[in-house]
Amino acid sequence: MPPKVGILAGGGDLPERLVDACRAAGRDVFVITFDGAAEYGDLGDTPHASVRLGAVGKTLKLLHGEGCEEVILAGPIRRPNLKSLRPDLRGARLLPRILAAKGDDALLTTIVEELEGDGFRVVGADDLLPHLLAAVGELGRVTPGDDERRDIAQGAQVLRALGPYDVGQAAIVSAGYVLGIEAAEGTEALIARIASIKPPGRAGVLVKLPKPGQDRRVDLPAIGEATVAQCAAAGLAGIAVESGGVLVIDQDRAVAAADAAGLFLAGIEAATP
Amino acid sequence: MPPKVGILAGGGDLPERLVDACRAAGRDVFVITFDGAAEYGDLGDTPHASVRLGAVGKTLKLLHGEGCEEVILAGPIRRPNLKSLRPDLRGARLLPRILAAKGDDALLTTIVEELEGDGFRVVGADDLLPHLLAAVGELGRVTPGDDERRDIAQGAQVLRALGPYDVGQAAIVSAGYVLGIEAAEGTEALIARIASIKPPGRAGVLVKLPKPGQDRRVDLPAIGEATVAQCAAAGLAGIAVESGGVLVIDQDRAVAAADAAGLFLAGIEAATP
Repeated sequence: MPPKVGILAGGGDLPERLVDACRAAGRDVFVITFDGAAEYGDLGDTPHASVRLGAVGKTLKLLHGEGCEEVILAGPIRRPNLKSLRPDLRGARLLPRILAAKGDDALLTTIVEELEGDGFRVVGADDLLPHLLAAVGELGRVTPGDDERRDIAQGAQVLRALGPYDVGQAAIVSAGYVLGIEAAEGTEALIARIASIKPPGRAGVLVKLPKPGQDRRVDLPAIGEATVAQCAAAGLAGIAVESGGVLVIDQDRAVAAADAAGLFLAGIEAATP
Repeated sequence: MPPKVGILAGGGDLPERLVDACRAAGRDVFVITFDGAAEYGDLGDTPHASVRLGAVGKTLKLLHGEGCEEVILAGPIRRPNLKSLRPDLRGARLLPRILAAKGDDALLTTIVEELEGDGFRVVGADDLLPHLLAAVGELGRVTPGDDERRDIAQGAQVLRALGPYDVGQAAIVSAGYVLGIEAAEGTEALIARIASIKPPGRAGVLVKLPKPGQDRRVDLPAIGEATVAQCAAAGLAGIAVESGGVLVIDQDRAVAAADAAGLFLAGIEAATP
């Protein structure tokens, strides 16, 4: 029997999709949500518990008690402020390393090391959902034009230049002009602010890549139907993601939404190292 | 007698400061504002005219007619959409090059070439206001701590990595974490969105540099009292700008505002090429 998976759930659709994927594969799951760290939907009859983000000891105890052997970190979590963190004993011991972690990658590495130190195998969402990784080429019916292909290449160059600095998973480029770069605000806020400064009409390309060298088990970027809807509403021409490096959640629905809105949705080759 | 200066005015305090500086130096000025391209204050008795941004022929004719020998481009201008541009004959001839210009630098270079082709000398705001260029070191009484110096260095690294891509004049970094990078939205929008995602308390450093290789005559970054007030309201700890590469408008008032709010205002060394 395949080992039971503990899902440490952040926001977005990813946790729910992982639960579906595990069930379809006959794997048992246990979901842990974190108070105030994200908006969670109704988990229905999925076995789950909710803990404070600072309750590291309780989280590990729950995972052991439920017999989980593998753990998956799924979806973004809001950085808590210290006041609301209220760590338990184990959390307090971890706190100095959490506070010393510079950037998202370092923070997630700390969490992975803690889980591995307790005997869990940390697996990636792409291990459970490999069919949702973007392929190379157009995923839908709409094809980017030459200008848009240049914008995609420019966006990818900008993001790769930022690679060493643990920042930047997305950029929006239009007609050779970099309109926006994502840092800590998230892709949704990036798209929202571009709507008012982009050229009128269907223009501008959202480019989303994994950061070079990031641990894909813990921070694989993802887009979904909601991303497509937001780009369509903002008047963008399309979305390009790194093939094999970005999950397209609900891929059928996301592609259908892009087709309906006249947006392209394309997978681009990963950079050769 | 020093030659008369034509000021092509964009937004912010810079055009007004240039008028003051010219008057103090006994130089005649003529200001051209552009319909809908920026918010303009009351120009009082300063000789001026307002034209459409697309009226390139009229703009050049005004500058010649007023006997301007030097021209200065001052302050940011909103990119017009094609519909509101309504070019005159000369503007229509320039339009293909304007549309082909990739990014701000290329666009401004096109404008400078057109002015130079008509016999004007294009000068920089720093030629007229050299005393407003930031010096090296603290400009006010507050001193950045070691952590903040590291954040400043990191912000400068990120901006320099973006140099080849004609994007990024400012970033906000806090405790080793890049919270935001400015692209087309402007520094004001960058600071505004950081307020809600930064750690609580006085934290985070705004770093502002000229783009490497940019033509300083036409796009010298500037901060002023309003920038200091906005950073104070957002809860940032301070501002660092490249010495000799960023204008601090109303420097006395900006420094006084930083001192009063407990923010540092520091000039950092330019990168050695």
